Amino acid sequence: MEDMDTSQQTSRDGAAADTYDVIVIGAGPVGQNAADRARAAGLSVAVVERELVGGECSYWACVPSKALLRPVLALADARRVDGAHQAVTGTIDTGGVFARRDRYVTDWDDSGQAGWVASIGADLVRGQGRLDGPRRVTVTPPGEEQGRARTLTARHAVAVATGSSPLLPDLPGIDEARPWTNRQGTDSSRVPGRLAIVGGGGVAVEMATLWQGLGARTTLLARRPLLPRMEPFAGEMVARGLSEAGVDVRIGVSVTGLRRPDPDGPVTLTLDDGGTLEADEVMFATGRTPRTADIGLETVGLTPGSWLDVDETCLVRGVEGGWLYGLGDVNHRALLTHQGKYQARTAGDAIGARAKGLPLDDGAWGDHATTADHHAVPQVFFTDPEAAAVGLSAEQATRAGHRTRTVDVDFAQVQGANLHADGYRGQARMVIDLDREVLLGVTFVGPGVSELLHSATVAVAGEVPLKRLRHAVACFPTVSEIWLFLLKAARE
Amino acid sequence: MEDMDTSQQTSRDGAAADTYDVIVIGAGPVGQNAADRARAAGLSVAVVERELVGGECSYWACVPSKALLRPVLALADARRVDGAHQAVTGTIDTGGVFARRDRYVTDWDDSGQAGWVASIGADLVRGQGRLDGPRRVTVTPPGEEQGRARTLTARHAVAVATGSSPLLPDLPGIDEARPWTNRQGTDSSRVPGRLAIVGGGGVAVEMATLWQGLGARTTLLARRPLLPRMEPFAGEMVARGLSEAGVDVRIGVSVTGLRRPDPDGPVTLTLDDGGTLEADEVMFATGRTPRTADIGLETVGLTPGSWLDVDETCLVRGVEGGWLYGLGDVNHRALLTHQGKYQARTAGDAIGARAKGLPLDDGAWGDHATTADHHAVPQVFFTDPEAAAVGLSAEQATRAGHRTRTVDVDFAQVQGANLHADGYRGQARMVIDLDREVLLGVTFVGPGVSELLHSATVAVAGEVPLKRLRHAVACFPTVSEIWLFLLKAARE
Repeated sequence: MEDMDTSQQTSRDGAAADTYDVIVIGAGPVGQNAADRARAAGLSVAVVERELVGGECSYWACVPSKALLRPVLALADARRVDGAHQAVTGTIDTGGVFARRDRYVTDWDDSGQAGWVASIGADLVRGQGRLDGPRRVTVTPPGEEQGRARTLTARHAVAVATGSSPLLPDLPGIDEARPWTNRQGTDSSRVPGRLAIVGGGGVAVEMATLWQGLGARTTLLARRPLLPRMEPFAGEMVARGLSEAGVDVRIGVSVTGLRRPDPDGPVTLTLDDGGTLEADEVMFATGRTPRTADIGLETVGLTPGSWLDVDETCLVRGVEGGWLYGLGDVNHRALLTHQGKYQARTAGDAIGARAKGLPLDDGAWGDHATTADHHAVPQVFFTDPEAAAVGLSAEQATRAGHRTRTVDVDFAQVQGANLHADGYRGQARMVIDLDREVLLGVTFVGPGVSELLHSATVAVAGEVPLKRLRHAVACFPTVSEIWLFLLKAARE
Repeated sequence: MEDMDTSQQTSRDGAAADTYDVIVIGAGPVGQNAADRARAAGLSVAVVERELVGGECSYWACVPSKALLRPVLALADARRVDGAHQAVTGTIDTGGVFARRDRYVTDWDDSGQAGWVASIGADLVRGQGRLDGPRRVTVTPPGEEQGRARTLTARHAVAVATGSSPLLPDLPGIDEARPWTNRQGTDSSRVPGRLAIVGGGGVAVEMATLWQGLGARTTLLARRPLLPRMEPFAGEMVARGLSEAGVDVRIGVSVTGLRRPDPDGPVTLTLDDGGTLEADEVMFATGRTPRTADIGLETVGLTPGSWLDVDETCLVRGVEGGWLYGLGDVNHRALLTHQGKYQARTAGDAIGARAKGLPLDDGAWGDHATTADHHAVPQVFFTDPEAAAVGLSAEQATRAGHRTRTVDVDFAQVQGANLHADGYRGQARMVIDLDREVLLGVTFVGPGVSELLHSATVAVAGEVPLKRLRHAVACFPTVSEIWLFLLKAARE
């Protein structure tokens, strides 16, 4: 073990200005959480950020997308309730919606979050961070040449939390088309007249919900059924909801090329069904690529641009000496802010324990193991209906070799659901592990289910036996009473 | 054991028309669930109902109150979101609200629910049911004299699920005042100009939320702080919400008398602070009394009008032979539909097991034990903010002798909460059992927390250790991320 006395020295001391116990590359929520836990363990920490402190999530993903979507969904909710819908006589105020978004992204100004980094006693180092051999990181300040980089040294750990970027397909005319990605999809303050969205995953369906809700005539082009990682009915119900909201949902269609001859004019997409589609903007939500191309992976024997393969404590495999961690999107386990934060908390604690020479608690569900990454990853899409799932789908569970039973319930049976929204339409599925009598996965689709999901996450991550779940009484008349029907169906 | 061959004989056989395996008195949700489980065990069942099949809950409590409240809350939710509130330019449509309520109570017509009783193969016997010695029940049809009663005999069990009635205080002028109870509070289709509500519990605060929301100038008169069984901040926040909605909330005030000299005129309340209050209607929500005064308890050695003292299977204590069950409100454990249904499911299964001579599973958390009644009773009030709690409050936990730690978190810290509602105001508390490292109770107050509660109920009833709860990741950015802050605070 290295001498822990030095861990109290931060750069403010002057003496060891460029040596830290821990260096975190990337100041998004994941990097921030890793820094927070390392600081809580008494370690000195530098956080390197090339762009905005707060990362993609805070400025171009979760936060602005929910800020923008919530007005659409709140009005949809009110419109579904007799007595209330009569009061919704106006239309959504796009100016108010964009102003709301601007407030939650603090006008893309990161001083508040930079202040938070300072408040936990970590040093923020602005610039492009690159590994430079074991435990070394060079930071090139914005606008400077790489040769002017400052070199930081880590006594204990370097954590890469650089996230991911949109992956654009290599199509003819893609550059000329200047497509939107999640960035323009969340930072635009102008509603395109016609918007084409390419993709069928979570980003695509949320963006279609949003922009159609704000008045864009939206076309969704997906090669495969929507939300392919969830139970099939999730994508089907979301597709139906989008269609009813006016979105032109086209499944099984691929884009083969794009043209935008006039930079100020419309974009034309050619499709593999032989047709073309003209739109004022086109957005691609066709996947993500790790932001690891230019972070010096080659200096430690790894391949630039690759996802990082990590162990249960998020230590990168194949790097000697156990000092490099991969947290959040870059490890490709689950490209979700909350799961990255979970990894960061776990790894931050593990870094602290290792630095102190304490024993690790890295067995299944231990304090230093990211066990939930394998069994209980929750995900919510703020569409209408909302789609929420945790754990394995029925197909995933079977493929993983579990002996399972699948139970399906229509929310229309649940009085609390109908009271919540007249004509409530929703569907729930529970996948049971027959050998252990616990839940492997739960999926809810319907208005308002985004807050219901955590009950399932506690059940799945907690491995609460079915026999005990029957004592977890849901209030009448809430939507949560879906549990009563699921558990009853499981007995039959 | 009695001969199970007879259990297949229902009254339709003609032969044993008045003999059943199980007789259930009261066809509310509780009685229905008991009947359902007894039928599932292959037992013949008669269900006796003197009023409407579906009970208080379906026609004058949970169902109409939520049907009426939901439009008020859906509009409040939309008004809290910038971009959406601008579309809410009209006012709530009371006609639409009342029509909604009428649909959910099926115009106080119980034929649908009577059909359900028939569909499970139980016999519905309409009339006042009264015990007539062990295992015997007389049923006096509506409008008939008691002497014309039909006598039913139960081979195995009689379950009393007659519920409770409003308890009116013995005040001068109370009859003349013709006060509203939960009945008029939920079945009225007229909004009083001025409404005085007496009481400070769940019914009182929901009714104040509702009628103020529908336009009545509402005064709430409570002797003690609101919602006395929840954490103190719940009542405080609900009081503040009511005040901001325009309700005149007066705490620490008692009514000493009432006058309504002109039956078509206003009612005047005299108060113990020396003042008077004039209103167009006055509603009392001052407690409940068991509907056991006229059900023949004296014929089996019990006291008419008393609550029934029951064991873990809901068998009434002090009655020889083990055949009388008390389910729902009458046993005074938790006057909540969902908890009564839980008791009914549990007792129904126990009745089935006992009838078959099977061993009971009535240890803690067993299939035949109502263990959750003691540890994990959930409750939600559909007020603005909503108030939701499960298990013990900090004070209750201390009083019960637990060594506890209390953790408080303001929802304002949770980005998902703010994104849900601009300026979200809410509070959460978690009570930890320090000896077992599990949760004893959780309270949430804030908009939309009613569906969040079940996550806590699963944690409390499932006795999920804190260490494991840290692996139950809540989605970013949902309101459910309050869990992250609670668990973080618990580590500090």
